[in-house]
Amino acid sequence: MKIGIAGYGNLGRGVEAAVTNAKDMELVGIFTRRDPASVKPATDTPVYGFAALNGMEDEIDVLVLCGGSATDLPVQTPEFAARFNVVDSFDTHANIPQHFANVDAAAKAAGTVGIISCGWDPGLFSLARLYFSAVMPEGVDYTFWGRGVSQGHSDAIRRIPGVADARQYTVPVPEALARVRAGENPELTTRDKHTRECYVVAEEGADLAAIEQAIVTMPNYFSDYDTTVTFISQEELDAEHKGLPHGGSVIRSGRTGLASEFADTLEFSLDLDSNPFFTGSVLAAIARAAFRMSEEGKAGAFTILDIAPAQLSPLSKDELLAHIV
Amino acid sequence: MKIGIAGYGNLGRGVEAAVTNAKDMELVGIFTRRDPASVKPATDTPVYGFAALNGMEDEIDVLVLCGGSATDLPVQTPEFAARFNVVDSFDTHANIPQHFANVDAAAKAAGTVGIISCGWDPGLFSLARLYFSAVMPEGVDYTFWGRGVSQGHSDAIRRIPGVADARQYTVPVPEALARVRAGENPELTTRDKHTRECYVVAEEGADLAAIEQAIVTMPNYFSDYDTTVTFISQEELDAEHKGLPHGGSVIRSGRTGLASEFADTLEFSLDLDSNPFFTGSVLAAIARAAFRMSEEGKAGAFTILDIAPAQLSPLSKDELLAHIV
Repeated sequence: MKIGIAGYGNLGRGVEAAVTNAKDMELVGIFTRRDPASVKPATDTPVYGFAALNGMEDEIDVLVLCGGSATDLPVQTPEFAARFNVVDSFDTHANIPQHFANVDAAAKAAGTVGIISCGWDPGLFSLARLYFSAVMPEGVDYTFWGRGVSQGHSDAIRRIPGVADARQYTVPVPEALARVRAGENPELTTRDKHTRECYVVAEEGADLAAIEQAIVTMPNYFSDYDTTVTFISQEELDAEHKGLPHGGSVIRSGRTGLASEFADTLEFSLDLDSNPFFTGSVLAAIARAAFRMSEEGKAGAFTILDIAPAQLSPLSKDELLAHIV
Repeated sequence: MKIGIAGYGNLGRGVEAAVTNAKDMELVGIFTRRDPASVKPATDTPVYGFAALNGMEDEIDVLVLCGGSATDLPVQTPEFAARFNVVDSFDTHANIPQHFANVDAAAKAAGTVGIISCGWDPGLFSLARLYFSAVMPEGVDYTFWGRGVSQGHSDAIRRIPGVADARQYTVPVPEALARVRAGENPELTTRDKHTRECYVVAEEGADLAAIEQAIVTMPNYFSDYDTTVTFISQEELDAEHKGLPHGGSVIRSGRTGLASEFADTLEFSLDLDSNPFFTGSVLAAIARAAFRMSEEGKAGAFTILDIAPAQLSPLSKDELLAHIV
């Protein structure tokens, strides 16, 4: 199947790697809003402007959209779904129903498949929430994120006057994790569940106390958390904090039995060296499913909850029965 | 939807509890090979002999088969699939392809849906193996079972002369688990991965040394493991070892990135007070999917890998988009 990538930031690089390494996929082009000459891919894939997509409908089976959820995907996914099978990792949870409706209308009108919100949260964590609640209806879900870099929070720190660079880690509170895993079903506030560690490079002469105060009191981002701020040099940040590791867990603690007499705990967790390269690898598997669903004549918007798991795998039905089931 | 249960052992009791507690399901009958008068269900569900199923095709939407994998299900699942939508937890991994083919032929001829091998392994662990390998193709899977009671191994001990009762626990080796979780990708033998703990009640005057020797040297069951044998009284076994807890983990340790430069670990684990009651709860969710797939006009054999996740949930599409994705 022939894959295109629209948007070439960290996530686009992740999709490029995953598609290049998949035996059943061919990467036909990287498409960018920037000047194509300014984009240097990691492979020898040709780079085009977005306008080049006009007329390439027959050359691309699935277009993987790697823009941001704030402003790119709400526009791009419906637009491109009107011409291509598309896959995205739209991750603004509150807006997923609206995004789904927009993509569904465009894809149904065009006869294409649009699969949205397929990274790891939403995406694999959505699957965990679905399966866990379906097979153990009585229970409580907990989602923990980290230890990992939050790019949104890092950006928020960088916008503070006097900050030259910053990296923010979201860290689950070990005691909270332990209580949930032990089946205690604790009531946990935002502050109980995660702490936030900030590594900040200040501009020369900046007021460090003012920067720290601006961070720890920032509403939505930091004020509801126990936040630590550590000032470091640009060299140290570049040497120690340039990666984008992440991870997390979905844990459901619940009960089975006629009178709820048995306690059970289910957990899905991941630990990633690179958030965007792993998310890119997920999107490549989703693109395989999008292609197959389109070949079956399906059309409209879908999430990972609508995809039969076997559709994601390059293995044949017989191989799945013999080795995976 | 109207559910029947065929076979009323531990698993049948688990399905009875789960279906009784599900708001969208009605348990219409328990069917047994034994004398129905000898079966006392935990609810006021009527009990019938298997013969009563003749003519009840319109009164049962899905029949959940709770017999054993050794001799019951290979015969029962194809037979009942010729008349009912059926669900089973057939767990003899090596024979799944043949079982699938038998059920597929019967279900396709009858226009029914037969979903096989849906407990937690095979079942939820099959899902983990599928999703993990699809989203991270480069990697190695490890499956650990326990700490939990193996009923097959407990039965094997009870067949040794001089043994009055026994309970066997399968226990993952903590060091092996830790190495896998740390991403070391170790090569592990059977002995490296699990130990076996046996609690044995000897008959009066029995030769304890001979019993222990018979256990630890038993081929297939114990000879490949580090096995400990502890003799206890019937009272202690009844007090401390009558439950059927179990659990386990599927862990995939792998790499992403164009040159495999990033290491990632994915894990699904469960910890269960009661293996049969949890498995029964899984089967109830699968029965919901079987009913819906049948209503859609599907026919033939399926595994959990063929079921779109949303089919398992009682939640509506809008609820899933708003709260689960």
